[in-house]
Amino acid sequence: MEAFQAALETVKKGIDPREIEAIYVGNLSSDCFEGQAHIAPIMAEWAGLNPRPATRTEDACASSGVALREGIIAVASGLYDIVLVSGVESMNKLTTARVTDTLAAAADAIYEVSVGATFPSLYAQIATAHMGKYGTTEEQLMKVTIKNHDNGALNPKAHFNSSIRDIMNSRIARAKERGQPIPSWTNEMEFLKDPSANPIVAWPMKLYDCSPITDGAACAILVAEEIARNFTDEPIHVIGTGQASDAQALHGRKDITSLTASRLATEQAYEMAGVTPKDIQLAEVHDCFTIAEVVATEDLGFFKPGEGPKAAEEGRTARDGEKPINTSGGLKSKGHPVGATGVGQLVEVWEQMNGHAGQRQVAGVNLALTHNVGASGSTVVVHIFERR
Amino acid sequence: MEAFQAALETVKKGIDPREIEAIYVGNLSSDCFEGQAHIAPIMAEWAGLNPRPATRTEDACASSGVALREGIIAVASGLYDIVLVSGVESMNKLTTARVTDTLAAAADAIYEVSVGATFPSLYAQIATAHMGKYGTTEEQLMKVTIKNHDNGALNPKAHFNSSIRDIMNSRIARAKERGQPIPSWTNEMEFLKDPSANPIVAWPMKLYDCSPITDGAACAILVAEEIARNFTDEPIHVIGTGQASDAQALHGRKDITSLTASRLATEQAYEMAGVTPKDIQLAEVHDCFTIAEVVATEDLGFFKPGEGPKAAEEGRTARDGEKPINTSGGLKSKGHPVGATGVGQLVEVWEQMNGHAGQRQVAGVNLALTHNVGASGSTVVVHIFERR
Repeated sequence: MEAFQAALETVKKGIDPREIEAIYVGNLSSDCFEGQAHIAPIMAEWAGLNPRPATRTEDACASSGVALREGIIAVASGLYDIVLVSGVESMNKLTTARVTDTLAAAADAIYEVSVGATFPSLYAQIATAHMGKYGTTEEQLMKVTIKNHDNGALNPKAHFNSSIRDIMNSRIARAKERGQPIPSWTNEMEFLKDPSANPIVAWPMKLYDCSPITDGAACAILVAEEIARNFTDEPIHVIGTGQASDAQALHGRKDITSLTASRLATEQAYEMAGVTPKDIQLAEVHDCFTIAEVVATEDLGFFKPGEGPKAAEEGRTARDGEKPINTSGGLKSKGHPVGATGVGQLVEVWEQMNGHAGQRQVAGVNLALTHNVGASGSTVVVHIFERR
Repeated sequence: MEAFQAALETVKKGIDPREIEAIYVGNLSSDCFEGQAHIAPIMAEWAGLNPRPATRTEDACASSGVALREGIIAVASGLYDIVLVSGVESMNKLTTARVTDTLAAAADAIYEVSVGATFPSLYAQIATAHMGKYGTTEEQLMKVTIKNHDNGALNPKAHFNSSIRDIMNSRIARAKERGQPIPSWTNEMEFLKDPSANPIVAWPMKLYDCSPITDGAACAILVAEEIARNFTDEPIHVIGTGQASDAQALHGRKDITSLTASRLATEQAYEMAGVTPKDIQLAEVHDCFTIAEVVATEDLGFFKPGEGPKAAEEGRTARDGEKPINTSGGLKSKGHPVGATGVGQLVEVWEQMNGHAGQRQVAGVNLALTHNVGASGSTVVVHIFERR
């Protein structure tokens, strides 16, 4: 409801919620996390949108990227002109162990989870494959962490609203206060390389390579192009959408240094939009783990295969780089309320395109992309937006 | 996969599965029931449909009615010409108690489940309200059970492939075999009125008023109208679709002797189709409980409010009646694999319209309706089909 109210408030010319004709909500597992299935009509009820059709979509962590796509398809069909697309997840009622298990159900239960795999270990395998093939280093991935926390520190809605330097300094200050041994870190890299600060979860994925367990929600209002300016002077246009599937288990794929579904969904979206990777000025990509971000920047065609980590290391994906990635802070720092992530990416793109991104604002963004991954890449959905 | 193969086999002119452009799968809770979320890409993988977009929809027991609707919308949008819509549920790995709890999560967790409500008790409240307002009797509801088992006995795919008379006679035969006291039942009503045969679950809902816990799946292939005859001489046309939402908890509704969402979804579908209730020659309605069937036949406009039970009693909804309802056996006898039910209803309609319904065939069905309910009526989705 907070996200819905926030979405309504962005509609500067006003919108009567009763004008909304349908609701799509992405959610991974409210039944397992909260004992409440069938949340779509509850959302309609609480938002005062009954009796409008309300449908939940689920494709693991891509659930609301898919809700967005279904909303787009529905408007394109002509059945509706105004659709609410949204995502929500609340996980923190459960213990971390139970959340990890519940999330793992989105991997392959038969071949992966049954032998102990959880998502950190699956992305660790992607990371080691990438290291083996391209020489990717742990330090390069740490640069992704530092960048995303730098961005998240400027995002008031971020889960971890602090830079790694801030976190480091507050740890040092706390040690001093408590009369404990003062850590010797002098920069972020030293902090991240210290196993006492950044312990291994599933090597080479350490604590700060992993996105957190976040509660959150996001909403966006889609309207038919021809009526958009009745509601706002700040519309952005959906110009491309793509979605693809792949083998659920990593062993079913030829190569795990790239997500085939990412490449295919991206191709569809670029083709529909009539743009190329070079044209994209900003992207929110699915950095559930640091390795996922660098692989995504390769699969999206921003950098050649194997060059994503180097690009991150050189600052080319920073806010002031040639290809700003995850200015919101990304899943790592903004947080990863799994079912909400896809629409949350759209919110960042909309804010950036309309100059509402505050201290993390990138100037002149007129073409941007969102990239939302389900599980370890068995679903990927990509959207391209234009401000005209 | 069995349902998918069965669907392919109905395409008499042949279809290459690779022509299928997207997959929608309705499912209530594979994560809670089976520890496997994110089943849409698994279905794509197992069916050899990767990398096609694969999306799960969830609206409780209306999950695949909604998958069907999303498939229709997607074809209408022009994005796809050929879409697989499906539903699946596998519940029997859990104990009955755990299945009942997991299903109950689709009711209102805060107001209903927290105080002990499960679906039998919620529909019992609808039944007592209907009894109070209209004088509906337990005997009238038993007629629904008898009719649906009579139909299911003729459906080789039914979960309970036996008439109530067959069940009664086999109990008598078993008692004789075992030298136990011989029950004195001489007809189905006596059997159903005997608490030892038909115990109360939540009065007035007895065992034989409730649909069973069923594992099952259903698939259908939607194609754009202009290419349908490239694949089959037996297409049926979707001419109406409607979906509506209502308060999740019963207390949030003004009247529980009718489902408002049913009436609204039905109105939308009739309006789109340009037909009236009188025109419908056969309907599959959501009889998760016997009371749900008679309420549905009222909400769909087949009978006046309060007259559904009398119509059932008089045989007007039997296969040879004026308005055959649930010729498949319905959820009561065919079974209720919750996420699969919506598309399963379409399968029955397709078979009836094309003369493939075997012993339960109704002659000359050219206009039929499916009615799929989520939870106690917070989602309802209705479709109308025509054979030309």
